[in-house]
Amino acid sequence: MNSWKPATALIVGAGSGLSASIARCFAGAGMKITLAARNADKLKPLCEEIGAAALACDASDAGEVEALFASLDASANGAPEVVVYNPSYRVRGPLLELVPQEVARTLMVTAFGGFLVGQQAVRRMADKGRGAIVFTGASASVKGYARSAPFAMGKFALRGLAQSMAREFQPAGIHIAHVNIDGGIRNEARGSIDKPGRPDSFLDPDAIAQTYLHLVMQDRSAWTFELEVRPWLETF
Amino acid sequence: MNSWKPATALIVGAGSGLSASIARCFAGAGMKITLAARNADKLKPLCEEIGAAALACDASDAGEVEALFASLDASANGAPEVVVYNPSYRVRGPLLELVPQEVARTLMVTAFGGFLVGQQAVRRMADKGRGAIVFTGASASVKGYARSAPFAMGKFALRGLAQSMAREFQPAGIHIAHVNIDGGIRNEARGSIDKPGRPDSFLDPDAIAQTYLHLVMQDRSAWTFELEVRPWLETF
Amino acid sequence: MNSWKPATALIVGAGSGLSASIARCFAGAGMKITLAARNADKLKPLCEEIGAAALACDASDAGEVEALFASLDASANGAPEVVVYNPSYRVRGPLLELVPQEVARTLMVTAFGGFLVGQQAVRRMADKGRGAIVFTGASASVKGYARSAPFAMGKFALRGLAQSMAREFQPAGIHIAHVNIDGGIRNEARGSIDKPGRPDSFLDPDAIAQTYLHLVMQDRSAWTFELEVRPWLETF
Amino acid sequence: MNSWKPATALIVGAGSGLSASIARCFAGAGMKITLAARNADKLKPLCEEIGAAALACDASDAGEVEALFASLDASANGAPEVVVYNPSYRVRGPLLELVPQEVARTLMVTAFGGFLVGQQAVRRMADKGRGAIVFTGASASVKGYARSAPFAMGKFALRGLAQSMAREFQPAGIHIAHVNIDGGIRNEARGSIDKPGRPDSFLDPDAIAQTYLHLVMQDRSAWTFELEVRPWLETF
Repeated sequence: MNSWKPATALIVGAGSGLSASIARCFAGAGMKITLAARNADKLKPLCEEIGAAALACDASDAGEVEALFASLDASANGAPEVVVYNPSYRVRGPLLELVPQEVARTLMVTAFGGFLVGQQAVRRMADKGRGAIVFTGASASVKGYARSAPFAMGKFALRGLAQSMAREFQPAGIHIAHVNIDGGIRNEARGSIDKPGRPDSFLDPDAIAQTYLHLVMQDRSAWTFELEVRPWLETF
Repeated sequence: MNSWKPATALIVGAGSGLSASIARCFAGAGMKITLAARNADKLKPLCEEIGAAALACDASDAGEVEALFASLDASANGAPEVVVYNPSYRVRGPLLELVPQEVARTLMVTAFGGFLVGQQAVRRMADKGRGAIVFTGASASVKGYARSAPFAMGKFALRGLAQSMAREFQPAGIHIAHVNIDGGIRNEARGSIDKPGRPDSFLDPDAIAQTYLHLVMQDRSAWTFELEVRPWLETF
Repeated sequence: MNSWKPATALIVGAGSGLSASIARCFAGAGMKITLAARNADKLKPLCEEIGAAALACDASDAGEVEALFASLDASANGAPEVVVYNPSYRVRGPLLELVPQEVARTLMVTAFGGFLVGQQAVRRMADKGRGAIVFTGASASVKGYARSAPFAMGKFALRGLAQSMAREFQPAGIHIAHVNIDGGIRNEARGSIDKPGRPDSFLDPDAIAQTYLHLVMQDRSAWTFELEVRPWLETF
Repeated sequence: MNSWKPATALIVGAGSGLSASIARCFAGAGMKITLAARNADKLKPLCEEIGAAALACDASDAGEVEALFASLDASANGAPEVVVYNPSYRVRGPLLELVPQEVARTLMVTAFGGFLVGQQAVRRMADKGRGAIVFTGASASVKGYARSAPFAMGKFALRGLAQSMAREFQPAGIHIAHVNIDGGIRNEARGSIDKPGRPDSFLDPDAIAQTYLHLVMQDRSAWTFELEVRPWLETF
């Protein structure tokens, strides 16, 4: 087995939930972390906690994504060896009530941004012949639910992107993975907490992060492209 | 069994290939056909041949799609009982060479237009409690090929839309179907013709049209949401 | 398009439900029908109605399946151009209560019998370079439900067989199809009838039969390997 | 997160390849290992190396599987907290040349044995409300290749079993996982070794074992049911 230990990671779409857990987990494994979000100010506490840098970036804007990576190229960390694409946007409700502009925005943030970030990431990784990119999917990546067409469109598209990138870039040494988060993530602020008698019924973001870490550390002889994480009590 | 015979059909993304065969096949089954395309002029010969009307429409433009359906509402045919969404756009090549705007356009034409047309279509069908919408997919709907990420993104997204619409609207009597065209369609103009010793190795558009017709005529007790059509000699 | 019209069909696992509807539908399209079942006596009324022959055969017994086809070879109809494999057996309940022998029997009838019949069928079709074999699947073909492991095992296995046969024999001109019957079939004797306010909530076997007929008549340039049929009100 | 550390593991279908790597990896993580195989004698060197016990068992024989678990119940290790089902048998070649008995045997060893072992395993785990069972799949679990129908039947069936067991037993605290080994495993004895210029083109069994270990250690709030492992150079 190889013993590749990535040294740097960029987490796009960083906030307080899963992305923060991934950042802590990756930092704990020795990676230097850069966080990117539209609003970088909110990331200060996390940055201080784990010694990460934060950069502002709208992932659906080609120019901003290009600038983000250029900024990293010029930084002490250099281009990231691991990239996680996490952003999503969604509008739900009866299809007849959906506003077309919101549907377009869902596609842009959830899927097109993944292309923009993925393209910049592989541009740097291809020369080195190694790297890892993880795309965060959802139940909607593989099942189009009623009254949630835009999110299904965005997450299906992101999965199509991930598959295509895997087929193009894995033979170049870049590990591409897609994680289907098939359940609600524990989030006290949003009230997503376990009900009595149903412990661990929400995904613990720290537990998900362990699986992200396992993925990016896998030996290239045995890469996982796709897996799902799901609470033990989740119906599927 | 019911004996629903749809009287009218709208084919969006009409041109000279599959869409023309569908138009002829549906007309042969007694439906009055409206064809929509960005350039409606090119549709004149087909319109004359099968007694169809042609309307100009950019399917990725919300206003134009709304106008298209308003125009049909006011026409002798009225709102269509069957709608086929056929448009796609694609840009291929090494991911590192892709121009972001072209990727966005692929998403808009291939998937977002499907939402716009689907929304207008069900708005009319929901009141009557019946109708059928068929989305034209491709191999790329379920497999992201290397060097073809944009098309995979668009076609995966369209499939997610179709699934979501099926779950929301089939219980309202509207049949939603997704057809995976898994192979090349015979097209002399493009040189897509059988090689010696390999007869019928391209999909005959008239044969595909027969399957579209079967779908839209199915009894509501036994609807097919998804199927693929593939030449006998195609590797899969 | 070709205009292949199959002249003969063998329906294995014939009884009073779907198989009878398929037999009537195929007979109505001009095919001479042979029905096979473990108990051929019960098939007499149907045979008289549609002018079919009935033969006794346990589809999970290699010798009996071989004898069935030998008998057809020697008959006026000759080897069948179309074969439908319909039998299944299932045992349900909590996994801990399942009797191993019943699980083995489920595999044998539902899947192994499909191999036996499929092997004999293609042996005859391969020389002519044409033919069609349809395997009857179920929701359990693609989803393993709790407390129904044996049926999932059998129907998953049958689908694997169908895929493998499609890849081996479609280039030899033999159309292989797998139909996922995703819902309950209307059956008055079993009490599977629509509840008030939910018309057509069970699959009409005559409607399913129309789709089987469409499949076996498809042009070889545009074969469908797999589709599902599902009532409009079915949750999925 | 919980911090469940399983103490004991049973590996059924143990030999010199993947199963040996799993045994070493699990032993390295502190588990006491029992190995089961039809021929237990060949396991002696591995047993000595990692302090494991070996028991003889034909996994497709209900009585032998029952005896295996009874023997474990009475042993110092007790009933296993983790079980890996690894056996498979296959016969390949043109479908027309396959011997029915060999096809049946493929189903029995590859899938029915998984049921027998799974049933005995959950019988012990259900009371404790925890445990993990991993089923070893293959490319053939999700794709039926030409000239390999029996293996597809067996591996598809095993996957159906795994899904059904996951839906029934995960809410009881038992983690069920299915691993699709999508490539050839490095094996010098069989000549499965990398060609010049294609390093790591075979799956390193020790790398696969790391992923098995990750699976059985996952927190119950974020279980993975299914993943695949595939060499970076593998076409898919």
